[in-house]
Amino acid sequence: MAAREIEHLIELLAKLPGLGPRSARRAALHLIRKRSRLMAPLAAAMTRAAEAITTCTTCGNVDTSDPCAVCADPERDDSLLCVVEEVADLWALERTGSFRGRYHVLGGTLSALDGVGPEDLRINGLVARAGAPAVQEIILATNATVAGQTTAHYITERLQHCRVQVSRLAHGVPVGGELDYLDDGTLTAALRARRPT
Amino acid sequence: MAAREIEHLIELLAKLPGLGPRSARRAALHLIRKRSRLMAPLAAAMTRAAEAITTCTTCGNVDTSDPCAVCADPERDDSLLCVVEEVADLWALERTGSFRGRYHVLGGTLSALDGVGPEDLRINGLVARAGAPAVQEIILATNATVAGQTTAHYITERLQHCRVQVSRLAHGVPVGGELDYLDDGTLTAALRARRPT
Repeated sequence: MAAREIEHLIELLAKLPGLGPRSARRAALHLIRKRSRLMAPLAAAMTRAAEAITTCTTCGNVDTSDPCAVCADPERDDSLLCVVEEVADLWALERTGSFRGRYHVLGGTLSALDGVGPEDLRINGLVARAGAPAVQEIILATNATVAGQTTAHYITERLQHCRVQVSRLAHGVPVGGELDYLDDGTLTAALRARRPT
Repeated sequence: MAAREIEHLIELLAKLPGLGPRSARRAALHLIRKRSRLMAPLAAAMTRAAEAITTCTTCGNVDTSDPCAVCADPERDDSLLCVVEEVADLWALERTGSFRGRYHVLGGTLSALDGVGPEDLRINGLVARAGAPAVQEIILATNATVAGQTTAHYITERLQHCRVQVSRLAHGVPVGGELDYLDDGTLTAALRARRPT
C-alpha cells in the first residue's frame, strides 16, 4: 500500500519500546506530515548520536567522550561509588542533583532464567574500582525488585574482602505517597526503618 | 546530565505521538544501546523518507511519486472516489484490499473551534474531481465522529449539483463485536439498517 520507504520506516519505528505496529504507523505519518520540521532534524540527531555516542569504559555510562563527563569531572567525590543497573537509573539519580560521587553501571541484573551471569555484567570492573584507595563507600542503588536485590546481594558478597563500606538505598514511604495505597512490604520496611524526629 | 546530543535526541523523540518525556528517554536509551542495528538504519530511513516522500497533488496521499501509486495505477476503477479524512484512513482501507477505486484525502475535518474551514481542506479539489466524466460515485468515508459527519454533510451539499451518486459507509455492528458491549447509537443504526438474509 504505502511506498517501500514508508513501510521500512514504520517497521523500524515499531522496534522502539512503547510503540506497536499501530502507533508506529501514527508516528510515521506524524513524521511525514512534519517532514522538514521534525523528521529531517530527528534523522540528523540520530545520525550524529549514532556516530558520537560511546560507552564509558570506566563506568558504563553513555556519552560522547570516554571517560564520560561524570568520570572526567574533577569536582566529583571519588570516595563515593553508586552502583546502578542501567544508564536510565544513572540519569534518574543525576536529575535529583543530590549525588556528587561517581557511578558504576552494571548493564542489567543477574538472571539465571535469562542466562545472565556475573561475567555478563560490569561486576569485575566494579570490584577492581572498589579496590582503589580513594573509594570509601559503595552505594548499591539497584532496583527494589527480586532481580535487583539478588544482584545487590551478590555484589555485597564479592566486595566482602574490599575495605569499603557497602550501603543500600533506604526503603520507605515515597515522598507524596499515601499509606493507604502502599503495599505491605513497603509499609513494613518504612516502619522498621523509622527514625526519631 | 546526559550529553547534549542525547538531550536533543530525547527532545525530538518526545514530539512523536504516543511518546512523552519518560518514554522518549526510554526510546533514546534503546536506540543508544542498539546504535548500529537500529539507530543508524532508522536515521537513514528517515533521511531517505524526508527527501523522497511528497504529497500527491491529485488525492493528497503521501508517496515517493506524484501522482501517487494509487492515482497512477491504470487498473483502478475511475468511477469510484472514496473520500477520507487522513492518509491513515486511506492506509486502513487499502489494508482491507476490498476497495479498488481512487481516493481523495481531505487532510482533516471542518472545525469551527479550531478555525478549520472548507478552504483549509482539499474540498475544492474534490468538487473539481467529482466533475470529471468518469466519476460515478463518491463514497464519504470520514470518521463516524461529529466532526467527520459534519464534514461529510457539508461535502454532500457541495456535491449536490454534480451528477454523481454520493454514499456513506454503513453503520452497524462491528464484525466480531458483541451486542452487549455496543453503544446505543450503533445498535439503533444496525437495527434500522437491517437487511433481509
